Amino acid sequence: MRNFELTHLPKRTEKPRQSGLTMVMDKGLSIRECENMVDGSGEYIDIVKLGFGTSLVTPNLERKLAFFKECKIPVYFGGTLLEAYIVRGQFDDYLRLMDRYKMEYCEVSDGSITMPHQEKCHYIHRLSKRVTVISEVGSKEEGILIRPNKWIEMMQAELDAGVWKVIAEARESGTVGIYRPNGKAHVVLINKIVAKIPADKIIWETPQKSQQAYFIKYFGANVNLGNIATSDVIALETLRIGLRSDTFFQYLDKSLHNPNFIEVIDQEKSNTVKA
Amino acid sequence: MRNFELTHLPKRTEKPRQSGLTMVMDKGLSIRECENMVDGSGEYIDIVKLGFGTSLVTPNLERKLAFFKECKIPVYFGGTLLEAYIVRGQFDDYLRLMDRYKMEYCEVSDGSITMPHQEKCHYIHRLSKRVTVISEVGSKEEGILIRPNKWIEMMQAELDAGVWKVIAEARESGTVGIYRPNGKAHVVLINKIVAKIPADKIIWETPQKSQQAYFIKYFGANVNLGNIATSDVIALETLRIGLRSDTFFQYLDKSLHNPNFIEVIDQEKSNTVKA
Amino acid sequence: MRNFELTHLPKRTEKPRQSGLTMVMDKGLSIRECENMVDGSGEYIDIVKLGFGTSLVTPNLERKLAFFKECKIPVYFGGTLLEAYIVRGQFDDYLRLMDRYKMEYCEVSDGSITMPHQEKCHYIHRLSKRVTVISEVGSKEEGILIRPNKWIEMMQAELDAGVWKVIAEARESGTVGIYRPNGKAHVVLINKIVAKIPADKIIWETPQKSQQAYFIKYFGANVNLGNIATSDVIALETLRIGLRSDTFFQYLDKSLHNPNFIEVIDQEKSNTVKA
Repeated sequence: MRNFELTHLPKRTEKPRQSGLTMVMDKGLSIRECENMVDGSGEYIDIVKLGFGTSLVTPNLERKLAFFKECKIPVYFGGTLLEAYIVRGQFDDYLRLMDRYKMEYCEVSDGSITMPHQEKCHYIHRLSKRVTVISEVGSKEEGILIRPNKWIEMMQAELDAGVWKVIAEARESGTVGIYRPNGKAHVVLINKIVAKIPADKIIWETPQKSQQAYFIKYFGANVNLGNIATSDVIALETLRIGLRSDTFFQYLDKSLHNPNFIEVIDQEKSNTVKA
Repeated sequence: MRNFELTHLPKRTEKPRQSGLTMVMDKGLSIRECENMVDGSGEYIDIVKLGFGTSLVTPNLERKLAFFKECKIPVYFGGTLLEAYIVRGQFDDYLRLMDRYKMEYCEVSDGSITMPHQEKCHYIHRLSKRVTVISEVGSKEEGILIRPNKWIEMMQAELDAGVWKVIAEARESGTVGIYRPNGKAHVVLINKIVAKIPADKIIWETPQKSQQAYFIKYFGANVNLGNIATSDVIALETLRIGLRSDTFFQYLDKSLHNPNFIEVIDQEKSNTVKA
Repeated sequence: MRNFELTHLPKRTEKPRQSGLTMVMDKGLSIRECENMVDGSGEYIDIVKLGFGTSLVTPNLERKLAFFKECKIPVYFGGTLLEAYIVRGQFDDYLRLMDRYKMEYCEVSDGSITMPHQEKCHYIHRLSKRVTVISEVGSKEEGILIRPNKWIEMMQAELDAGVWKVIAEARESGTVGIYRPNGKAHVVLINKIVAKIPADKIIWETPQKSQQAYFIKYFGANVNLGNIATSDVIALETLRIGLRSDTFFQYLDKSLHNPNFIEVIDQEKSNTVKA
């Protein structure tokens, strides 16, 4: 929704979006805080992740899930929770948990545990028969470097196994995976990935504003971005459409302005003369 | 409002304030979050900026504006939005937008675009016939240095063109303009500015606590501060009046304490002896 | 409360907790924001500090205190407020203030002022006859180093004077006291402290996630942590019980996983063969 018209704004995709997704990270909002978030920015939120294992300790989990269902905003448990079940050899219990809460989306990741990639794809495959699966590639540990070819192989294999979108890991800090410890993007890595994997199949974790701006400049308004803080959704939307300084000239010709001013001043002068 | 009395607290100005202003940056609050903010700290909020282009994408913009009007808290669209109109040669459409939303304040900035300063002053002049104008000096780009004399010239010209207050730019990050990239203040620049421009005409953007403390130590409790996060207003008020560690001795004589203690202990002893 | 069962989770203490405490720092929430916080995470909040001097300027202070009383969550004024009374020679007025607001907890600190340690213990002693006292050791100033022996002596003397828990200072920034300016823990200092002072008598100020993880890894799920941001309580709880990447293997045997997977795959294969 746009309150007023302005030229040279990019067209944004609309819900249910396949690209231009904003995935928000909920680290433990109360029900009323969820309501506030949706009231203030719901139309720009495509999917909500209940971060890591928060679902286990959050009060009113059922009401929270029901609320997002009413709002037609998909919601899923963070991949760390699935990893906690896998590492305990309880994958089947996780399936029962998904059923119990009538989950329609899930995330498969290996950010905290190490497992053969074949195993990860096996879980993806089984889950994809039941729900929409998002997978996550990349380590949560700082300093772990994965070769670009390995990133691509893994992403492709996970798409083949049935995932809807694959997330490029950055944690909620934005300092690992596709970023250096200082939060700057690994440009070569990203270039190599998008040469092989369709961009609209990837969700880039971009918790920091500079990272959001980087991907919007690179891929445009309708890039998929994830791990967005619950209070940053509106600000992100302005970044996407070029109404914040970082992306201001994204959809404009830099030479656009000067001629107009001269005209304004001239017209002003002639008005003054007339008056 | 102070819940209880304490000596040696500075006198704070009262609404409608001309100095000691706190300008808050709203990056996309819902209506209920606005209510929470005003309920929790409204008496210390002098003016609210709807940051950059958020007004275009915020749901319930009219209700938000009406809410702030009810609370008698002035509100304005971030300067980036005006720049977006100017760069498109649509300044007159911006005037119509201001009318449509019955705005009583506006900001004129050139943080994202480059324009002749004469042009900026021209817009200020035209707008100042209709509404209260706040202007902003300084670039949003890191590493852009403007000579102190240029800062002063521009601020003076903008005041002459009709602005109520002029903002010294720092962005919401606090790393440009009057700050170095590490967030520390450009002391020499600030000194030169206040030697020429009346301090109560300037609003210093101080998103970080250390920056707020710096200006309070320098200019006292009733310095004008801007780009304050919506959740920091109460904490800022304690900084202003010396009830937070950073400014604790601002209004006190460091030698105040020790004599008192000896008295306390002595009295205690004599009580003990008596008892 | 746990929404579902999972093996290998540590047992958490229950309210009213003597260890495993989470102390939250309120920097100026509105009443409704307090309600949201308690609704979303109240069972994991053991005590709320109204930070530094916020109590003096917070609107609706009495309603806020009444709200926390209803929720059976102890609340206290930040130590900086008491220091402001002490430095003015008005300790007795502080006692009257405590009575007026029917406070049941209080904090005694010397983070902003310098006073003989004998004097601090004197205040602790007097207050401990009336309310539950928490004291704080460590300077709020960066670069001030206190020898480990001195930390221990002071903590012990304050416990002897009647405090319930002693807080190890870090400020809300987490860059002083038990931390270096970069936020990393002073490991040697911490080791020496816990060799002499019972761990459950100490509350570690851990505003940053890495600091929370550090103390949980060192002391386990039921370590006392303080200066937790109001929006971080649920996330902290997942850290405590090993459901976030940083502490994922805290309660697990790293060799736990691989055998299980082979079993899963084998079973899968045999199912396939059967089918």
